[in-house]
Amino acid sequence: NECKDTGEFLSESPVSGFEITRILRDSAREKNIFIHGKVKDQDAVVILEKTPIRQDTLTELLKSSELKLEMRNDVYSTYQLHAPAHLNQIKTTVVCPATEKHVKKYLRQEIFLVEESGEDYRSITLPYISKQSFSVQWVYNILEKKAEADRIICEDPDPDTGFVLLPDFKWDQKQNEDLYLIAIVHRRDIKSLRDLTSEHLPLLTNIRNKGEDTIQKRYSVPSSKLRVYLHYQPSYYHLHIHFTSLDYEAPGCGVERAHLLSDVIQNLQADSSYYHNRIMTFPLRTDDGLLLEFKDAGKL
Amino acid sequence: NECKDTGEFLSESPVSGFEITRILRDSAREKNIFIHGKVKDQDAVVILEKTPIRQDTLTELLKSSELKLEMRNDVYSTYQLHAPAHLNQIKTTVVCPATEKHVKKYLRQEIFLVEESGEDYRSITLPYISKQSFSVQWVYNILEKKAEADRIICEDPDPDTGFVLLPDFKWDQKQNEDLYLIAIVHRRDIKSLRDLTSEHLPLLTNIRNKGEDTIQKRYSVPSSKLRVYLHYQPSYYHLHIHFTSLDYEAPGCGVERAHLLSDVIQNLQADSSYYHNRIMTFPLRTDDGLLLEFKDAGKL
Repeated sequence: NECKDTGEFLSESPVSGFEITRILRDSAREKNIFIHGKVKDQDAVVILEKTPIRQDTLTELLKSSELKLEMRNDVYSTYQLHAPAHLNQIKTTVVCPATEKHVKKYLRQEIFLVEESGEDYRSITLPYISKQSFSVQWVYNILEKKAEADRIICEDPDPDTGFVLLPDFKWDQKQNEDLYLIAIVHRRDIKSLRDLTSEHLPLLTNIRNKGEDTIQKRYSVPSSKLRVYLHYQPSYYHLHIHFTSLDYEAPGCGVERAHLLSDVIQNLQADSSYYHNRIMTFPLRTDDGLLLEFKDAGKL
Repeated sequence: NECKDTGEFLSESPVSGFEITRILRDSAREKNIFIHGKVKDQDAVVILEKTPIRQDTLTELLKSSELKLEMRNDVYSTYQLHAPAHLNQIKTTVVCPATEKHVKKYLRQEIFLVEESGEDYRSITLPYISKQSFSVQWVYNILEKKAEADRIICEDPDPDTGFVLLPDFKWDQKQNEDLYLIAIVHRRDIKSLRDLTSEHLPLLTNIRNKGEDTIQKRYSVPSSKLRVYLHYQPSYYHLHIHFTSLDYEAPGCGVERAHLLSDVIQNLQADSSYYHNRIMTFPLRTDDGLLLEFKDAGKL
């Protein structure tokens, strides 16, 4: 295939002699892969990512490619398309020499689904998180206005049903497409979803109503464009609630970790001990200490 | 470039004469594009998606590709990689002839969250889906082995608790990172989650157990690496269950549309009418007729 791009091919490719040590990470959805290996005895990381399909070369792509039939059913058929290389490039990044820090940065930890019964929570998870005594001082700093006070969007100071609402760090507040706010409750005795009972319904409905109203007024984003949910496991054990734009596939909004606030409210209305007894399913990374605890208990 | 795959190239490519009308949707993140156009005066939709980078062909890919330098800075450098076509395929799906419904389905639209009570389901949603009488003939073709029979991975023929398991269209089966299978039940009287009661627990647990066992044996993917869930609303009203790799953020696995099978089973064990009465939250696109029905009923 003739190459119509400017620029010359390298006579010696920097990756042709690359010896693969291991795959650090890859994404089938994003079509990329991060590889650790060696180039001439030097540590290196090579990142490959397929390029987006360009609208301006579509006609040429469809005209000049070859196809193999895979499957046909009714009006649907699928093919393997073999495209000219210059219309189907792979973006390649080389880090060489790579330090241990580079390698760690790109390494993805494997993720496993864990099923935790109410009993497992009390005998494995609760002792683990108590022993770790993860610091939530930064949360208390926010609640006491010792930090980030200027970032608070709204506050209800009620000690039982009150909360502060502020933008998540991941959101730069420049556009509403990836809107992401967090409501943090004033009460300090609710670690997570597991602690919630019907006693907390006034708190939860208050957060839902005031949070949605505030976001509507401040950002003109209506509640029908908002995904409002809790994480289990949360990343810190002080109750907080996520408000994200429905248009934004926020990390952690997958069914295996997120719980819609409206479902939580309904479940507690029907059964005050719903989250006390239920088997909860959640993902844990290999390097998460809690995964080890579940393994040691023979639960995985 | 020599092609090492089995199968012949088609002498006449079904897309070479494709005339592009407009781009319905594309994703730079997922490297796909949905195109509306015409093939020999027939309306058609062509979907192109680059394939995930395969670990088993990496060495060959790095050895046999040509590179052009783009940028060099300190330890970092970037390149355009031109790969042999057989190592860098584009998955192509053709819908032809395509109806207006197909075109609408793939056109990017704004999305709204809808809350549907049990009463709303019976007075708005059920009459709407009955009136539309969406064809599920293609599902019956699979169940009756009139199409895709060779793609079936496992079958339990029991009329009450049986199902077929087969790869989803979206998965090319070349790597397990984006594993995606669908279990379709033999029973034809269950439209969706809304119809499920404790009567269906043997069906659901059978699908869960046999589905997970089969995937473990055939693909060596254990149940702790599987996300098993139902959609509500589903894209077709014949009960089916999604099995996706936990490593793959499959479209539609967000908390606003997906329901973990293990949660569904538990909820039905606790309350047979859970899904009959519950307020269900789900996203609808602007062009979805159901959204209009909810608007007309003053529910949005």
